[in-house]
Amino acid sequence: MTAFADPAAFAHALAMLPEPDPKVRAAAAARQAELTKPAGSLGRLEEIAVFMAGWHGTPRPTADRIDVVVFAGNHGCAAQGVSAFPTEVTAQMVANFQHGGAAINALTHACGASLAVIPLDLDTPTADISRAPAMSEAECLDALNRGAAAVPEGCQLFVPGEMGIGNTTPAAALCAAALGGEAEAWVGRGTGVDDAILARKRALVEAALALHGTASTNAFETLRRLGGREIAAMAGAVLAARHRRIPVMLDGFIGCAAIAPLAAEAPAIVDHCLASHRSAENAHGRLLDALGLDPLLALDMRLGEGSGAAVAVQIVRSALAAHDRMATFAEAAVAGAT
Amino acid sequence: MTAFADPAAFAHALAMLPEPDPKVRAAAAARQAELTKPAGSLGRLEEIAVFMAGWHGTPRPTADRIDVVVFAGNHGCAAQGVSAFPTEVTAQMVANFQHGGAAINALTHACGASLAVIPLDLDTPTADISRAPAMSEAECLDALNRGAAAVPEGCQLFVPGEMGIGNTTPAAALCAAALGGEAEAWVGRGTGVDDAILARKRALVEAALALHGTASTNAFETLRRLGGREIAAMAGAVLAARHRRIPVMLDGFIGCAAIAPLAAEAPAIVDHCLASHRSAENAHGRLLDALGLDPLLALDMRLGEGSGAAVAVQIVRSALAAHDRMATFAEAAVAGAT
Repeated sequence: MTAFADPAAFAHALAMLPEPDPKVRAAAAARQAELTKPAGSLGRLEEIAVFMAGWHGTPRPTADRIDVVVFAGNHGCAAQGVSAFPTEVTAQMVANFQHGGAAINALTHACGASLAVIPLDLDTPTADISRAPAMSEAECLDALNRGAAAVPEGCQLFVPGEMGIGNTTPAAALCAAALGGEAEAWVGRGTGVDDAILARKRALVEAALALHGTASTNAFETLRRLGGREIAAMAGAVLAARHRRIPVMLDGFIGCAAIAPLAAEAPAIVDHCLASHRSAENAHGRLLDALGLDPLLALDMRLGEGSGAAVAVQIVRSALAAHDRMATFAEAAVAGAT
Repeated sequence: MTAFADPAAFAHALAMLPEPDPKVRAAAAARQAELTKPAGSLGRLEEIAVFMAGWHGTPRPTADRIDVVVFAGNHGCAAQGVSAFPTEVTAQMVANFQHGGAAINALTHACGASLAVIPLDLDTPTADISRAPAMSEAECLDALNRGAAAVPEGCQLFVPGEMGIGNTTPAAALCAAALGGEAEAWVGRGTGVDDAILARKRALVEAALALHGTASTNAFETLRRLGGREIAAMAGAVLAARHRRIPVMLDGFIGCAAIAPLAAEAPAIVDHCLASHRSAENAHGRLLDALGLDPLLALDMRLGEGSGAAVAVQIVRSALAAHDRMATFAEAAVAGAT
């Protein structure tokens, strides 16, 4: 199945976002009010239960099936030295994912989520965004469609993760192009770069914005010019999940940056998304604010791979367990508030 | 086993707090530095792994066995109308716990923790703290010892929870007596009381402080005069866990207030404790700051029962899974930072 036949099909999908079922949301909220606890005392757990109910279309939803998909891509701009790690680490980490040795392997094991890894043409890095569009139209469509196709049947909560040495640089460029602001406001230390590399990242993003800024007139063009394969794949997956009413748990700066161009065109794209955490990457808090997302965790994580999301999905499990398993005041013969 | 034969034994236990093993902590930190991720990129997950290692005395600790124990008590001061719920709800909720219908049942199910419920003489409420000490010396010792005895053999992470209609009022009094500040600073809306009840709570706490303030000269006397059975039981459990080097995940305002008198006498009591969340109860943030604890979550929860802690223990599981299961750079043949 090709989700997006051409850029127009992508734009159409973005313009026609389905909404959650208001009746099911109301039924879930009514159930919350009857459970044996002071009204509202489970805080965001209650909101999450109502959110999941609305998207799943059932007042007592479950999240037994959680799928994490890590998309990996290589970036032409990495040759300019914008990461603390050499570019071959992208492929080495893909092997590490496949052998079960990375953080996301351990974290998906801990939360009982499935994990798939999709390397995207690692031998053919995208073009350097400071010199050319990252991808051709066909390449960008291919990445979007491979992302869309990676959302499994039966998935109840989807987690897009990523690996790509250097990818905080295109992510910063995407944020600046989609949401405004200077390059400096969106560039951070990524895996832990020093001041010299940070300055190179800023200069590279400024050059990319100068080259592509006026041409990045819509979500597709912004992704194509300033993104990368794993970034476009995440965007395609999030949009495809929306049309299948599958809620998404976003991870960190890259995952949120991937939907920034979509949000600039259709702010409601975040309505089926939960923000797992506010990462230690400098601009992530600003990005979450711009997207209107309130993160569930703030644990100073900054790894990517979907790692923060794989921790946060457990909060969703807790929320749905309370929503589904608790007794009502009437069932438990407990007196309500006077 | 009686952990605390008399108040002096309790004071002695509080004065002789064991510390975590520094060599094991160093070994765990060294392992973290070798795992296939940028150094420090798992943030607080890395700190938690080192914390657990130091207390367990093993560089690759596990938390397969997590025990939640909910202590329940009734409070004489509740007769003054300081809760939105009638006092019989304490016993009704104990029955709800025993039948599996409460939030803590669902949340322990979700995280795979065991759950025990210990009702403490519910038919004999403590005395009204605005008129007399809450407990006799014997009653307070009994509660401390029942708490200490409730920490199971083989427990790898202990969660003290509580149920007691009206118990934010003695908790506020304990905070004011142990940590200073006006009653108003420590009184909040609990289960959701209105302004009239809030004013009664404040007046009750002020009266209790006037009556017991100068006599609350040590942790035991403060707990005995201003606490309650479930509160003293939590304090006894936390102190007993420390002497067995079992880490503790604290829940909300009541659970933290229970150790405030201990912390005033021995600030290091929090060293084997993690703060699960910052609750929506007004004074909990101030209390966490005073104790020097940085909460893992802030989800606007305010239920008690151990509910916030039962969500947060999953973060510990994630932290230990990453720590134990990840490959090192050498094992995975991944290049390190340049």
